[in-house]
Amino acid sequence: MITAETNIPNRMRAAVLMEKGVVRMEDRPVPTPAADEVLVKVASVGVCGSDVHYYREGRIGDFVVEQPLVLGHEVSGRIVAVGADVSPSRLGQRVSIEPQRPCRRCAQCLSGRYNLCPKMEFYATPPIDGAFQDYVAIQDMFAHAVPDTVSNDAAALFEPLSVGIWSCRKAAIAPGARVLIAGAGPIGVMTAQCARAFGAAEVIITDLMPARRDTALRFGATLAIDPSRDSVETLGVDAFIDCSGAAPAVRSGIRAVRGGGHAVLVGMGADEIPLPVTVIQVREITLTGTFRYADTWPAAVHLAASGAVDLDGMITSTFDLEHTKEALEATHDPAQLKPVVRL
Amino acid sequence: MITAETNIPNRMRAAVLMEKGVVRMEDRPVPTPAADEVLVKVASVGVCGSDVHYYREGRIGDFVVEQPLVLGHEVSGRIVAVGADVSPSRLGQRVSIEPQRPCRRCAQCLSGRYNLCPKMEFYATPPIDGAFQDYVAIQDMFAHAVPDTVSNDAAALFEPLSVGIWSCRKAAIAPGARVLIAGAGPIGVMTAQCARAFGAAEVIITDLMPARRDTALRFGATLAIDPSRDSVETLGVDAFIDCSGAAPAVRSGIRAVRGGGHAVLVGMGADEIPLPVTVIQVREITLTGTFRYADTWPAAVHLAASGAVDLDGMITSTFDLEHTKEALEATHDPAQLKPVVRL
Amino acid sequence: MITAETNIPNRMRAAVLMEKGVVRMEDRPVPTPAADEVLVKVASVGVCGSDVHYYREGRIGDFVVEQPLVLGHEVSGRIVAVGADVSPSRLGQRVSIEPQRPCRRCAQCLSGRYNLCPKMEFYATPPIDGAFQDYVAIQDMFAHAVPDTVSNDAAALFEPLSVGIWSCRKAAIAPGARVLIAGAGPIGVMTAQCARAFGAAEVIITDLMPARRDTALRFGATLAIDPSRDSVETLGVDAFIDCSGAAPAVRSGIRAVRGGGHAVLVGMGADEIPLPVTVIQVREITLTGTFRYADTWPAAVHLAASGAVDLDGMITSTFDLEHTKEALEATHDPAQLKPVVRL
Amino acid sequence: MITAETNIPNRMRAAVLMEKGVVRMEDRPVPTPAADEVLVKVASVGVCGSDVHYYREGRIGDFVVEQPLVLGHEVSGRIVAVGADVSPSRLGQRVSIEPQRPCRRCAQCLSGRYNLCPKMEFYATPPIDGAFQDYVAIQDMFAHAVPDTVSNDAAALFEPLSVGIWSCRKAAIAPGARVLIAGAGPIGVMTAQCARAFGAAEVIITDLMPARRDTALRFGATLAIDPSRDSVETLGVDAFIDCSGAAPAVRSGIRAVRGGGHAVLVGMGADEIPLPVTVIQVREITLTGTFRYADTWPAAVHLAASGAVDLDGMITSTFDLEHTKEALEATHDPAQLKPVVRL
Repeated sequence: MITAETNIPNRMRAAVLMEKGVVRMEDRPVPTPAADEVLVKVASVGVCGSDVHYYREGRIGDFVVEQPLVLGHEVSGRIVAVGADVSPSRLGQRVSIEPQRPCRRCAQCLSGRYNLCPKMEFYATPPIDGAFQDYVAIQDMFAHAVPDTVSNDAAALFEPLSVGIWSCRKAAIAPGARVLIAGAGPIGVMTAQCARAFGAAEVIITDLMPARRDTALRFGATLAIDPSRDSVETLGVDAFIDCSGAAPAVRSGIRAVRGGGHAVLVGMGADEIPLPVTVIQVREITLTGTFRYADTWPAAVHLAASGAVDLDGMITSTFDLEHTKEALEATHDPAQLKPVVRL
Repeated sequence: MITAETNIPNRMRAAVLMEKGVVRMEDRPVPTPAADEVLVKVASVGVCGSDVHYYREGRIGDFVVEQPLVLGHEVSGRIVAVGADVSPSRLGQRVSIEPQRPCRRCAQCLSGRYNLCPKMEFYATPPIDGAFQDYVAIQDMFAHAVPDTVSNDAAALFEPLSVGIWSCRKAAIAPGARVLIAGAGPIGVMTAQCARAFGAAEVIITDLMPARRDTALRFGATLAIDPSRDSVETLGVDAFIDCSGAAPAVRSGIRAVRGGGHAVLVGMGADEIPLPVTVIQVREITLTGTFRYADTWPAAVHLAASGAVDLDGMITSTFDLEHTKEALEATHDPAQLKPVVRL
Repeated sequence: MITAETNIPNRMRAAVLMEKGVVRMEDRPVPTPAADEVLVKVASVGVCGSDVHYYREGRIGDFVVEQPLVLGHEVSGRIVAVGADVSPSRLGQRVSIEPQRPCRRCAQCLSGRYNLCPKMEFYATPPIDGAFQDYVAIQDMFAHAVPDTVSNDAAALFEPLSVGIWSCRKAAIAPGARVLIAGAGPIGVMTAQCARAFGAAEVIITDLMPARRDTALRFGATLAIDPSRDSVETLGVDAFIDCSGAAPAVRSGIRAVRGGGHAVLVGMGADEIPLPVTVIQVREITLTGTFRYADTWPAAVHLAASGAVDLDGMITSTFDLEHTKEALEATHDPAQLKPVVRL
Repeated sequence: MITAETNIPNRMRAAVLMEKGVVRMEDRPVPTPAADEVLVKVASVGVCGSDVHYYREGRIGDFVVEQPLVLGHEVSGRIVAVGADVSPSRLGQRVSIEPQRPCRRCAQCLSGRYNLCPKMEFYATPPIDGAFQDYVAIQDMFAHAVPDTVSNDAAALFEPLSVGIWSCRKAAIAPGARVLIAGAGPIGVMTAQCARAFGAAEVIITDLMPARRDTALRFGATLAIDPSRDSVETLGVDAFIDCSGAAPAVRSGIRAVRGGGHAVLVGMGADEIPLPVTVIQVREITLTGTFRYADTWPAAVHLAASGAVDLDGMITSTFDLEHTKEALEATHDPAQLKPVVRL
């Protein structure tokens, strides 16, 4: 049994990736929420680098687009229907979606690492559809209420904000920390903002492109370095977070970490990278990577609502659903930090 | 002021590495303990792979033997004199030596990571002399009392045992854990014993040499694999500890770790090794290395005294001080797990 | 749809607590497993202190027996049917049951603390029936496979063993630790065994009753103290685990902990106890309590199968289902460590 | 050998507590720094509640003023001489003093918990003199450099700021946390500021006095509660930090913590307090206390320099050294958050 607002249609629009480079508007049935799910009328959807990668290449590593796929996993909206096990009091609530469905039965789920669930179904990861469509369904605990003071666009960006929060947690950022971030793209900038919000005293960011370094300085980095000119290897930082996926940046970043410090790999690049293992050993550096996130939305709500991070300021262009293809292509321009599709 | 037993001579014997491949007996003055030090009459000294490396190559990485050096840092003995700040009640005590002198003033020392002290003076690391000599001095808190039931030889091996304890701590080994160890040399065998003592349910060890695999099975490994024949990559272990320093072992070992598990690099090898970073990322594996140890002797005392690890059984040959050169060369024979020099 | 062995009856026996002090055999329908559940033919059920408390008092704190209740939550058995979402390959498997059903949707469940789930349904806790009956249903991930070498009785005791494992984890017991345990009842003895299995060098146990102190010494305690004669307060242990619930034991136990050590409260007693807060402060002791357990069965399987703990030896009497009442009353005799009902 | 600026006199002024209630100016020799120490010309000294307690009562617990004692342990100043082992480049540096001298040899010191060193010598704790005098000596690593933008008064308050930092670390405050603080005195207000700087979303503070509640709201608390009127017990906060030492506040604060949350006792009160142990158990709350701090000055420097906490704003009155007695008595007025003696 589903409790719904009165005006939910049966059909909806969806911007579907048919094959690489081809996005087509389709008319599809509105999803039916399961007993533990809510149905969300989508408001804003951010464009992520992974969306663009699927659009351009038709695959990311082992994940291949073999059938039409709806992209988009940075999503905000409003609850318009709830399944039988969900309180009807949630109807009408503005929400930010944690775009995943873990199995909740495996050892990873039971131990709180649901992001590592081997049966995870994640929005916009083949064959699971994402959110460039009018309505989506999600388990109710993954539709997080949003305060009135946070815009729909900002609420959509809780997803990349969660990537930043998760990496700062893995990097053990605490008040007074000195942090090095490689790569001033959207995730690097978001992570720089998070590091400051976690109390970092210094946030040093590296990027080859001057425009991106300037952007990072506007969003909380305390120093921006051109790695083709200046070495970071003597910095002795408490933590290094790679948001570039570039092998040279990863190597020099690890060398920049002090004894007992942390290195966290967020950016995806080559499957194998030669790493300075002797440095990792003699300094007992703790190196890890991040894969999505777990339990980050409560912190994201606070960081956005308190103004500790600026999400609206990161949005550089907006599109309507019919122009999803243009939104995906907008990121060709490096000045485009974050395009958003508004429904 | 020094309080001493009556019969301490002024001069002593020392087996000195003059240059690579050349060990010469010398007559040297007995060290004078500082105010916070004890003087130890050496009983047993184990031969470590690093001793052998200095003997053969004259260097380990940036550490170069540029002047005559006394090797040996796995040491037991008896306290025969104490400095002014040390209780005379320690005179006569049998001790195992933690062979190091951290500065105790830097940020690393103050935070409990004294093994990462940049001013560390470590036995048998140029230019600090080690223990292939009749007497050594050490700060009193690093001369750990040894129970009567533990032999001098075993007490000398608290040092490599500490390497094993430290790596098991870094690998978060707990009761029920499944552990993969690469390399069945002395450190691999010691680590296998430690992993069992930490409660590991399965200890899988890999080595190319059948004799070393057999040895490991006698010392606690539950399964020994020939990595040239069988792959470990689907094991899904909780922790991987590399004691080989071999790049292929490190790579396949990391791939053998389950989501959320640990990889610890103990064996020294190439400065850079291509590592499977995508695996580290999507499984959020925590990778680190070990550099010596901190605060391990109390646990070592217990593991040895309780019989949880067998140290005497690892000793495969003994030499007197005049045959230190032969002890260093004994390890050419892979059946020689641990030669010991007895004074 | 349920897949089952052929010979499952429709009706079964159940030993039901009708009101305090009254146990009656009833004929009841065999439970039907849900899609994610298995049906288990019960083999052995241990008698726990909480069962006895409900039997004698009709309540534990806020949990009141207001309708007939089946007791028993230490359970082993064999899978005889599986729900639609469970692999039929599990049919016939011998299992130990983790006797709980968390909601898997709340913040506690998602963060891995499912034992703190506010909607938890736990066997033999009103109004949820337990296992003194021929068949029980449980979610498949909470029916843990048992090795052939472990008896049905021992497999039933994985539940109290889990209490011991959980408390040792909370107390951060590691190889070489010195541990004080207050109370040598079944949980104290189990915890002593666990502490040894975690590598504790010393396990000091206190109990007023000589017979219980003797029992503890047979199960791994290294020293047993009569707290009416000797004080523990100068011990300076790494960890104190209270399994007595007695206020004086808790107070003196906390005073026995070294600076930076741990105190863990397992035994239930008065709602409020005067605690030595100044000692907790100036020694920065970490004090916590345990409530059931999470993620302990894998370790329990290993500790039992490896012989690190002796479960069969703790069983002091056995009863058939018709004599469940006698099993509950057996614990009047302090020599009765653990009665078991065999079906 | 000591390297010094030219103009250091031989004698200095000291405001000495002769017995309870009696402060007398004395002429004393300027301290001589040891080899690893610096000599600091004192600039500002904050008045702490413990100073006042010694002044009024002549003792704190077991610490009794049995001979004349110089109070004051919140200290800033300028380095005017250095011992033989300290770099002369430090001469002239403005510093904030971490007012302690741990032994650096015991197990606590070696493990990074130097604040728990049993041989600790702490400023203004009998019989160790504090800083209400013109010059003090301190080990060089405990004289922390201060940025130009931080005032002398603020640098003196790095000490109480460290108390706040340490308690927030123990309470595991992270971005988004909900925190309850009991007591809006100087430490409560400082802790509230720290909690916000650590990213807390909500900081709820309780105090019986309206003026203190108002002060807390000006310094970062998001809600101030009169505990005589409103209960906090249903708040379900992530962390409770007691800065009151009052038994009712401690009890209700613990009951206010969610399952898996933290309670930290900072305020000193009765040696024993009845605590709700059943709540601690069924919610698995982690309770601990703080005793001074370790490794907090680097974070303190950043929080002050970045403006994340406001120290100058907490200073409510200033005195010269001759009026140290008046400074100690100023705290009779609850509106006096922090008096400072300027030299």
